[in-house]
Amino acid sequence: MSDRKTLVADLKNAVRNFVHKRDWEKYHDPKDIAESICIEAAELLQLFQWIKPEESEQFKNNPRKVQRIKEELADVILYCLSMANALDIDLASAVLDKIEQNKKKYPADLYKGKAHLTQ
Amino acid sequence: MSDRKTLVADLKNAVRNFVHKRDWEKYHDPKDIAESICIEAAELLQLFQWIKPEESEQFKNNPRKVQRIKEELADVILYCLSMANALDIDLASAVLDKIEQNKKKYPADLYKGKAHLTQ
Amino acid sequence: MSDRKTLVADLKNAVRNFVHKRDWEKYHDPKDIAESICIEAAELLQLFQWIKPEESEQFKNNPRKVQRIKEELADVILYCLSMANALDIDLASAVLDKIEQNKKKYPADLYKGKAHLTQ
Amino acid sequence: MSDRKTLVADLKNAVRNFVHKRDWEKYHDPKDIAESICIEAAELLQLFQWIKPEESEQFKNNPRKVQRIKEELADVILYCLSMANALDIDLASAVLDKIEQNKKKYPADLYKGKAHLTQ
Repeated sequence: MSDRKTLVADLKNAVRNFVHKRDWEKYHDPKDIAESICIEAAELLQLFQWIKPEESEQFKNNPRKVQRIKEELADVILYCLSMANALDIDLASAVLDKIEQNKKKYPADLYKGKAHLTQ
Repeated sequence: MSDRKTLVADLKNAVRNFVHKRDWEKYHDPKDIAESICIEAAELLQLFQWIKPEESEQFKNNPRKVQRIKEELADVILYCLSMANALDIDLASAVLDKIEQNKKKYPADLYKGKAHLTQ
Repeated sequence: MSDRKTLVADLKNAVRNFVHKRDWEKYHDPKDIAESICIEAAELLQLFQWIKPEESEQFKNNPRKVQRIKEELADVILYCLSMANALDIDLASAVLDKIEQNKKKYPADLYKGKAHLTQ
Repeated sequence: MSDRKTLVADLKNAVRNFVHKRDWEKYHDPKDIAESICIEAAELLQLFQWIKPEESEQFKNNPRKVQRIKEELADVILYCLSMANALDIDLASAVLDKIEQNKKKYPADLYKGKAHLTQ
């Protein structure tokens, strides 16, 4: 399968079935899922600890690095899918709505080439 | 649009276009994206700070809470999609491969109803 | 040594010497230290993944659990001390000033026994 | 007060009194404190989002930036102190023991000037 053939709902169903077959819904309350997203996000970040941003860009030429990132990224997304299942959230509309909000917040002509932080 | 009609590639493209129109690829090196995933994951977790897990389950009956969670969850996923774009990662296969790994690691008959931690 | 005999400056000096002897100041820019604080904080949180808050309270009777928490907590604090060294921050005044701010933000008579979230 | 005059126990006591006067011990179970450490660590990291490591080093010449970092760093440490109170952990020995462990793990002559990651 691939991103060009897979519906978001297919991924949600795969996670739902995995959780259900283990009777793990009882652990997957939204608070604990949010914790796990955080934990997995930090494991992903750890793959970039102490390196320079430029070095991280070179990772794309290193299949072993990409594979490790792919696995940690999958863990983050798995829990995001589980959160969506637990709260019956439509992820496609969540993502596309947020992009629309961001388009208004960061108009392309004003922000082109400029950092999005204004701190 | 909805999860039943949206391909993972559709979401990746929407993020790619948003980033490209602002010429933000230069900020979106993998290390900085990983940081942002972490930051957004913690903002999501903050919606559950100091509450009991049981209370978090009741959030599903509170449309205002679900809306806030949906927005923070979208932020996490947006950066995950951006990471996939930056490193040319196929997310569908990343997620489904990880589920297969987890099926072997946590056989349903052994783990049914049991916590997945063994610390 | 112990908390009743150790000055905050003693801990900062111990970390400074450790970093200096390895010539690691070049890695310890504030941004990378902040990342490491995040990573270690998530490793600490992982010790509580999927368990109930009440169970976490019982950890205090489990010397092995306390030892693991102590080690992960130390990692978080080590990087906080390194951040203070890198930016010449006085931690004692940082902490005591913040408590004073919090006293005003959460007056004891108003907040007594009530959750500090108002989301 | 200052780091050269403040004992670690003084900071622990200040946090303990603050929590106790609000009857907040009931919220401060170890799991929820660990969550809050994570949340505050990410708020600290957010001050460095999208900037280059070299820029973050220049923050030390920017009193307004240092002040913001000081406040977020204080939040992380406040919860670390609260965790130590909740589990009766001696932080000075936690930190100094960890430094001793790290000295063995990263001998100065082997690691001098070399990144501590071996991933």
